[in-house]
Amino acid sequence: MAIKVHGSLFSTATMRVLACLNEKGLDYEFVPIDMKAGEHKKEPFISLNPFGQVPGFEDGDLKLFESRAINQYITSTYTDKGTPLVFHDPKEMAVLFVGMQVESLQYNPPAGKLTLELTIKPMLGMATDEAVVEEKEAELAKVLDVYESRLGQSKYVSGDSFTLADLHHLPTLSYLMGTRVKSVFDSRPHVRAWCANILARPAWQKVIAMQHN
Amino acid sequence: MAIKVHGSLFSTATMRVLACLNEKGLDYEFVPIDMKAGEHKKEPFISLNPFGQVPGFEDGDLKLFESRAINQYITSTYTDKGTPLVFHDPKEMAVLFVGMQVESLQYNPPAGKLTLELTIKPMLGMATDEAVVEEKEAELAKVLDVYESRLGQSKYVSGDSFTLADLHHLPTLSYLMGTRVKSVFDSRPHVRAWCANILARPAWQKVIAMQHN
Repeated sequence: MAIKVHGSLFSTATMRVLACLNEKGLDYEFVPIDMKAGEHKKEPFISLNPFGQVPGFEDGDLKLFESRAINQYITSTYTDKGTPLVFHDPKEMAVLFVGMQVESLQYNPPAGKLTLELTIKPMLGMATDEAVVEEKEAELAKVLDVYESRLGQSKYVSGDSFTLADLHHLPTLSYLMGTRVKSVFDSRPHVRAWCANILARPAWQKVIAMQHN
Repeated sequence: MAIKVHGSLFSTATMRVLACLNEKGLDYEFVPIDMKAGEHKKEPFISLNPFGQVPGFEDGDLKLFESRAINQYITSTYTDKGTPLVFHDPKEMAVLFVGMQVESLQYNPPAGKLTLELTIKPMLGMATDEAVVEEKEAELAKVLDVYESRLGQSKYVSGDSFTLADLHHLPTLSYLMGTRVKSVFDSRPHVRAWCANILARPAWQKVIAMQHN
């Protein structure tokens, strides 16, 4: 099997890559990294990612890291497999580039921090910092106001089909649906419908199922 | 003139887009946004970018924001103009995707904060937060250790030619060269050579010259 993903099934970045591979219907091997034992900070993992963060990715002799970069590679290489997730038209693709940057630089900073405070820390037996939650929830609400307006104009964040820009939200979105922050999404009707729609995708449900096996 | 960039000549994100347009040798109109007067938070600007951040970008009827997305659009559309800045080969392009993500998610968080504390705040008559500087300088040093190793293997961050992944560093790099943080770059020989090389590019020098006109 040519494609290998080294990571943790509970890491948002690892889940992001698995979701993409599932959408493309590609075969891959999942190689678990024991993060509690710090395997991601040691060899052989840091030869895959010198920053010591999961996931690491291999496709034959090509070694990559950074989940969003891996997904751009997958979608631009395996163009004829599964869901396209990207566009051919340069102008449509430009809007997709914007959507991916918005996820990474506007949505993810508060959503990632909230996921850490409300789901990852409790999983590890650590205390949630309520002041951080309050601040990041307010930041997320402002970002989702822009999403609400955008999703009133198109079914997905970068147009009328499901793309990488939507997919990149799934891991944090999925975690936050199990927390009190769900109300920040639910109180915005277009955002709520978009969440329900993309979380129900079979490729995503397969990632969740992998966590429970 | 079809291409318009709305922004501030001193904003790192605006400078990032201008550097790309200059490398591609494209004609464009620069439309100044008075950030002190809060023009970026009001109409008509927020119709270009609902997050109220410079730059906004127009190419005919296409309207975009997020500097790195704009640059991906420019390089994938105007492929036959000026410096390529991207690769054709999917595996080389994959390494470039990684380099762009590393800039955005590893390098820029400390470098952007240091730029704010050591150059933007003093420009606006605000006090530098020394505790933030100390923390972010340590973070940047760790990131640059990885760069030092990488730049020992290839002349540029994503291979042997200058690409978007290098270009995206230029605005913060240029600002930080005028601060005490310069030593964090200079103490790493491959990083120091890379900085000197990319900062000397005529397309970048043109951005600096625009600031002084």
